Amino acid sequence: MKRLGELASTLDLDLRGDPDHQVERIASLDTAGALELTFLADSRRRGQLTESRAGAVIVRPDDADSVPGNALIAPDPHLAFARAAQLLHPPEARSGIHASAAVDESVQVGHGVAIGAQAAIGRDVVLEEGVQIGAGVVIEDHVTVGAGTIIHPRVTVLAGCVLGAGCVVHSGTVIGSDGFGYARDGQRWERVPQVGNVRIGDGVDIGANVSIDRGAIGDTVIENGVKLDNQVHIAHNVHIGENTAIAGCVGVSGSTRIGRCCTIAGAVGIAGHLVIADNVHITGMAQVTKSLTEPGIYSSGTGIEANRSWRRNVARFHQLDDIARRLRTIERRLKTDD
Amino acid sequence: MKRLGELASTLDLDLRGDPDHQVERIASLDTAGALELTFLADSRRRGQLTESRAGAVIVRPDDADSVPGNALIAPDPHLAFARAAQLLHPPEARSGIHASAAVDESVQVGHGVAIGAQAAIGRDVVLEEGVQIGAGVVIEDHVTVGAGTIIHPRVTVLAGCVLGAGCVVHSGTVIGSDGFGYARDGQRWERVPQVGNVRIGDGVDIGANVSIDRGAIGDTVIENGVKLDNQVHIAHNVHIGENTAIAGCVGVSGSTRIGRCCTIAGAVGIAGHLVIADNVHITGMAQVTKSLTEPGIYSSGTGIEANRSWRRNVARFHQLDDIARRLRTIERRLKTDD
Amino acid sequence: MKRLGELASTLDLDLRGDPDHQVERIASLDTAGALELTFLADSRRRGQLTESRAGAVIVRPDDADSVPGNALIAPDPHLAFARAAQLLHPPEARSGIHASAAVDESVQVGHGVAIGAQAAIGRDVVLEEGVQIGAGVVIEDHVTVGAGTIIHPRVTVLAGCVLGAGCVVHSGTVIGSDGFGYARDGQRWERVPQVGNVRIGDGVDIGANVSIDRGAIGDTVIENGVKLDNQVHIAHNVHIGENTAIAGCVGVSGSTRIGRCCTIAGAVGIAGHLVIADNVHITGMAQVTKSLTEPGIYSSGTGIEANRSWRRNVARFHQLDDIARRLRTIERRLKTDD
Repeated sequence: MKRLGELASTLDLDLRGDPDHQVERIASLDTAGALELTFLADSRRRGQLTESRAGAVIVRPDDADSVPGNALIAPDPHLAFARAAQLLHPPEARSGIHASAAVDESVQVGHGVAIGAQAAIGRDVVLEEGVQIGAGVVIEDHVTVGAGTIIHPRVTVLAGCVLGAGCVVHSGTVIGSDGFGYARDGQRWERVPQVGNVRIGDGVDIGANVSIDRGAIGDTVIENGVKLDNQVHIAHNVHIGENTAIAGCVGVSGSTRIGRCCTIAGAVGIAGHLVIADNVHITGMAQVTKSLTEPGIYSSGTGIEANRSWRRNVARFHQLDDIARRLRTIERRLKTDD
Repeated sequence: MKRLGELASTLDLDLRGDPDHQVERIASLDTAGALELTFLADSRRRGQLTESRAGAVIVRPDDADSVPGNALIAPDPHLAFARAAQLLHPPEARSGIHASAAVDESVQVGHGVAIGAQAAIGRDVVLEEGVQIGAGVVIEDHVTVGAGTIIHPRVTVLAGCVLGAGCVVHSGTVIGSDGFGYARDGQRWERVPQVGNVRIGDGVDIGANVSIDRGAIGDTVIENGVKLDNQVHIAHNVHIGENTAIAGCVGVSGSTRIGRCCTIAGAVGIAGHLVIADNVHITGMAQVTKSLTEPGIYSSGTGIEANRSWRRNVARFHQLDDIARRLRTIERRLKTDD
Repeated sequence: MKRLGELASTLDLDLRGDPDHQVERIASLDTAGALELTFLADSRRRGQLTESRAGAVIVRPDDADSVPGNALIAPDPHLAFARAAQLLHPPEARSGIHASAAVDESVQVGHGVAIGAQAAIGRDVVLEEGVQIGAGVVIEDHVTVGAGTIIHPRVTVLAGCVLGAGCVVHSGTVIGSDGFGYARDGQRWERVPQVGNVRIGDGVDIGANVSIDRGAIGDTVIENGVKLDNQVHIAHNVHIGENTAIAGCVGVSGSTRIGRCCTIAGAVGIAGHLVIADNVHITGMAQVTKSLTEPGIYSSGTGIEANRSWRRNVARFHQLDDIARRLRTIERRLKTDD
């Protein structure tokens, strides 16, 4: 429960309404009741405000007059809502080591650390202050986890990897698996030992069932503030710049270097040994076959259409070079290309 | 071991042959021996029946005369076979709690529940009658699992999620990870707490290494009878209608609503905030960039071809708008477009 | 630490330099110091050798004169480097069963086997000599693991599956989940019990968070020397031939048969019931919609381009059959197609 007056002062927002009114949780605009906080980011939907019974609504200054009850006023209501929601819904902080956890005696356990049931923590692991380790997590030897980082149940962090402070790692994720490195020996493949590590900065979030390979030689690096969604695959020696966000099911091949502040939408595939500049934005399912050296929005794919027309169009795609040549022949004959 | 007479009466099939003959397992048509049950669904392959040494073959009425041994007759042999196979191969039912499991004392354990080795079950979890929990499973606080649901080893169900009755969840799957929700703060990303849950209906099957995010506000919902294959990613606040089947490696982005009785083939990607109607069928690797409001079959992609011709065709794809404009110029000149 | 003379004789390489010089680890060409071994595979980069302070460089015979220090000479420097790296960085061999592991008394534990913390090993499992089982691994009943195989933390091997000798399985992987097999019953789906197993040959590597389904009837088969990268999905009854390598995020649908010595790049999707010949190479994100019966390189997709031009080109893709027909009309009129 937070008083609106307290939220307004903590978040530096203007309040129009009752500072002693209390809210206890967030809700969507259409369902929020008296104990709930909500927001409106898109002024075109201002009409929906008049019906709201929310305990308070965070709005832009121009929309404040349309709020029938309490209004918190912010230049960016979505951002203010995110911060207010963090205050209303802090992560449940536990501490102590569950009796069933297997924690090597050499582990350095900081103040306020929690280790869940059935976790296994190897030799010479460092868990800094306030680290939360969920049930069933495995952390191998010589790993360091920075202060306040939350590792959800059933994550694996393999030997020697380093996680920064204030990160969140979701369940099922694997950090530090071997890269896919082989040398050909005739028809066989000879393994190349993968001796690098994974280094993850501060404030990095990693979704569920992600895999991040250790470097072959040198490290795989995820810089501060990077956000990775579920099912992402990061190959060995990839480098991801600060504050880049990568959506679900993306695969990044080995040694590719992605810049800062990029957004990469779902199921994009990025080939190996490429360089992606800062501020590149790639739309969903794009096939990144070459380096993208200029900021901008990039895309690929054929969109979606009815199967019947797609079958015809895809057959023509396979004739496309021929079609272009035939068009050229006609243009030459008609001299339309002058 | 089941007598053919018992199978015929339980499944309401006609039997042509010996009701006292017994079969103990299923097999394929080409390998089935005297103790094995098989089926033929496609009458065009009727010729294969004559060689069969199967203990019994389930066939359509028109194919019964071609079976040299015992025939079970069904209008839909594949469906009858599925049911017969369930009778011959019931899931191995265990019960009891393994000594190494860590089960909070507040857990409500129904009759006939089994909990495997190294499992961790949190506070106030409800496991209804006959629930089977595999080894290494983690179930966080306040989760409910409906009667008869089977959770295979090393699944994670995070706090507050609800699973219906008669579901099967395969290994490595994560239910209730946080959605990928952030507000921009300049170049940084501010987390938006994800306070919804995941609600899963009855008879839902979920494959291996799937991830299903909890709702941001409100719940992610999987209705009764939905089937999800391996490596599927379901983002926050997605809603999947009854009896829809989704094949491996599909990603569904946030807040998309998929109707009933859809089939979505492997590695399809579906963008966020879309509506997919009932009875929509999407072919493999399609890129769903817009809502599909009519039932039907939808597709995308360029199919497969030799790399050499693909390289030429894809270069032409990048000129396609230009090609179309040049064609239009010629048509105007020749007035073929009247 | 290895003497160069020892490396040269073990690996059958020529040494130009000091046989008593010792190296202790591998490094990249640009960073390698006196205790480090590196290699140069691409003679066009020979100029970089002159700056190297590496303890030794593995090079082709033609490049040996450019090495300022110790040179190990090999016809294939990358392959020789892989083998040297294996000698310098052997996997850490442990043995013994961690006190927190739950190992059924019926398990056959070979000489030198290690079982990590919180592992759960079921009934009648066979772990041959030198098998290494990581923390949190679950192995169900009746599984056999061949000599020297390394199973990293938090892998699941389900009942009855067979792994060969000398394999490596990375964390989060699931072997033996049920295939996605259903029969339609009106609008509902009836489960078809999946009664086959997974059989994995010798020297197979499997990446992190991979899923390999058991066969419906008969087995899913991965032959000797196959390499699978992270997040790969192998459906029921797939058969993968010897020494085929499959990169990250690939999905292979049910009953498809892939030949020997194929390479399948990242995020390729392969439809079901196809046959892929030996020595087929498929480029990244290709959509394999039909059997590929001839060796060769195959591709699909539209590559990457600026979003603005892509939007125009993809709109034209949806008109492509119409465009081709209009071109044909013009050709007929002009008789350019003679």
